[in-house]
Amino acid sequence: MATPERIKAVAGRIVATKRSGAQVVAVVSAMGHTTDELIALARQVHPAPPRRELDMLLATGEQASCALLAMAIDALGEAAVSLTGPQGGIITDNVHTRAKILRVDPSRVRRELAQGKIVIVAGFQGMSRDEEDITTLGRGGSDTTAVALAAALEADICEIYTDVEGVFTADPRVVPTARKLRDISYGEMLEMASLGAVVLQPRSVEVAAQHGVTIHVRSSFSDREGTYVKGEKTMERDMVVVGVAHDTNVAKVVVIDVPDRPGVAYRLFSALAAEQINVDMIVQSTKRENRTDLLFTVTRDDLPKTLEVTERVARELGATGVLHATDVGKVSIVGAGMMSNPGVAARMFRALAEHGINIQVISTSEIKVSCLIALDAVPTAVRAIHEAFGLGETQTAGVAAGRPAHAD
Amino acid sequence: MATPERIKAVAGRIVATKRSGAQVVAVVSAMGHTTDELIALARQVHPAPPRRELDMLLATGEQASCALLAMAIDALGEAAVSLTGPQGGIITDNVHTRAKILRVDPSRVRRELAQGKIVIVAGFQGMSRDEEDITTLGRGGSDTTAVALAAALEADICEIYTDVEGVFTADPRVVPTARKLRDISYGEMLEMASLGAVVLQPRSVEVAAQHGVTIHVRSSFSDREGTYVKGEKTMERDMVVVGVAHDTNVAKVVVIDVPDRPGVAYRLFSALAAEQINVDMIVQSTKRENRTDLLFTVTRDDLPKTLEVTERVARELGATGVLHATDVGKVSIVGAGMMSNPGVAARMFRALAEHGINIQVISTSEIKVSCLIALDAVPTAVRAIHEAFGLGETQTAGVAAGRPAHAD
Repeated sequence: MATPERIKAVAGRIVATKRSGAQVVAVVSAMGHTTDELIALARQVHPAPPRRELDMLLATGEQASCALLAMAIDALGEAAVSLTGPQGGIITDNVHTRAKILRVDPSRVRRELAQGKIVIVAGFQGMSRDEEDITTLGRGGSDTTAVALAAALEADICEIYTDVEGVFTADPRVVPTARKLRDISYGEMLEMASLGAVVLQPRSVEVAAQHGVTIHVRSSFSDREGTYVKGEKTMERDMVVVGVAHDTNVAKVVVIDVPDRPGVAYRLFSALAAEQINVDMIVQSTKRENRTDLLFTVTRDDLPKTLEVTERVARELGATGVLHATDVGKVSIVGAGMMSNPGVAARMFRALAEHGINIQVISTSEIKVSCLIALDAVPTAVRAIHEAFGLGETQTAGVAAGRPAHAD
Repeated sequence: MATPERIKAVAGRIVATKRSGAQVVAVVSAMGHTTDELIALARQVHPAPPRRELDMLLATGEQASCALLAMAIDALGEAAVSLTGPQGGIITDNVHTRAKILRVDPSRVRRELAQGKIVIVAGFQGMSRDEEDITTLGRGGSDTTAVALAAALEADICEIYTDVEGVFTADPRVVPTARKLRDISYGEMLEMASLGAVVLQPRSVEVAAQHGVTIHVRSSFSDREGTYVKGEKTMERDMVVVGVAHDTNVAKVVVIDVPDRPGVAYRLFSALAAEQINVDMIVQSTKRENRTDLLFTVTRDDLPKTLEVTERVARELGATGVLHATDVGKVSIVGAGMMSNPGVAARMFRALAEHGINIQVISTSEIKVSCLIALDAVPTAVRAIHEAFGLGETQTAGVAAGRPAHAD
């Protein structure tokens, strides 16, 4: 909700939903660039603002937008009430700026719904269990608030409005033939989200999967249906690969010549975890006797902190040095049917080889295969893989064609 | 606190106070024009925003500034914690946008102080007793928060920082010889504040008087001492008139030809009170048999609502009509020794007469005399009265000379 006009548009949509007979709880983010502006303000008074105070400051963004949305709904003739995260019963741990939701107490929301009101809850924020302080949930916090509330309220559906039409087989800006999926399983969505297709934040999908909340991801600029993210269908999967994801917010770190003994990886990755840094791909390769190189990737945002921690631990471990690079990107294929279909990974590697793209790191899970490649090769790689698996709208056959494209 | 630079300056002052050995609780307002900007935003989505939601929105202004101040203090090396009004234990009634503080629960503030922290509380806001919603206190709310907290914490002193150096014998912009008072009693300050010398909001002075809190009103732009507002000294007062106040935010309303029977004034003024409108001067003058004119004043801001209510009640009462004017202003003298010194009011009236200024309405209390006069005569009137009572710095004698000017 960037402007008063957008707030009014959202209010109109919510009122229409209410008038169709539903009880409505809406979760909102801050307006436009409010959060960035508040962070810039904080940096003007403190080079590294204390996290508790940053939460106190940032939480005002969502509080303001939810009050404005409640006003806009009132102007359309429906009763509405805005609630802060703490008022909405969002109880979190005490990790400021990256709090996790521990539980949701929906009693206040239920009371307001029972009075026929539309309830607007400030996303991205909650109240710490111990101190009863305002916390913020970090990246993806608003989506997660919505899913957690939907679970606590046993809502029929959790609609998440984004700036895209739904989940596509690949980024349509990179692959013009990319097709919107009608539905996708939690696991697949989780991988797509983790791999850079940031339609939904992974943590919101995790919460949805845990509690069986069906998410409808759709565009806030159109009335068309988007993509339903929900539990596996009972029938056997007929679509091996549902999409190609890519992520360019990647940095590579290599610790050179680490002594090859037990506990080395633990020392490094527990130190990074203590700083709340998520490590993605990890590769350890023995170079020569008793020495190994340890390679891993993190988001670019986390790189400065990562290097600080890694260089310290590397010295303690007696490693030769630490290298890093940001000219890398990750391309991935995702699909729940992958494991029962041999040769899927090989088909991806062939597509890359045919375009002369070198693979630096490979990482696999039950439902995805990811390759770290040169940053400038990412668009070519995504198009090549998308075509190799026949995911496009104009394709008529292939492993991916089993699920019809949703007509929109 | 208009800018990050001002926040840092305030932080520096608070840290200095802390390092002098005091425990410090600071109450802050919103930055610069934040409140006005938020109100403008609200009006863009609703012509008359619901008051509960307006409070939710406006409270973000103080929440942001207190978080920023806590950060700025942290940057100077002292531990600080910001608290919202609800967290600070400010419990109010349920009247949104004009809530009154019912009680203060200082337990959280005490706990933080005991840990050696500087506590920053968001002014102007609290939590409604029944709904546990965010309320705002309306005009003068931040000063009132500070005094109420000082009372609850049994603080030695409540310092209030303003854009003036203290309380003067008259507005220095109108009377160049006006003198800063070293101290003033609650009653006098209350009258000065009520009469337009808005150094302190009357309600904060009322709370201070009720709980015996000494207020030090001083400039946020200098280290000089300001004016102490405190209980009466034990010695007999030797200064009859402490100052001349004036107020140009005045509107006059006259109800013409009201039937002169019991209950008429009650009907009108209870209807105005129900709309939270404060009526100041009231004069009822019998014109002819069974008919009377009812004249009163309100602030200009309240005039539209006042006319709406008054015109309705006037019709019900069978009055001829309602007139109003905004080309009026009020000048007043204030002094606790006034009642035991006959002739004080007469001296004021003479000063006005000597300058050809007509008095429209007179209103008196134990410690003040107010006259409603033409708006354009206000500056002349203030100077004439200030001189007539010998209040200026260059005066060597006269009724006001008993208290020495504070050297600054």
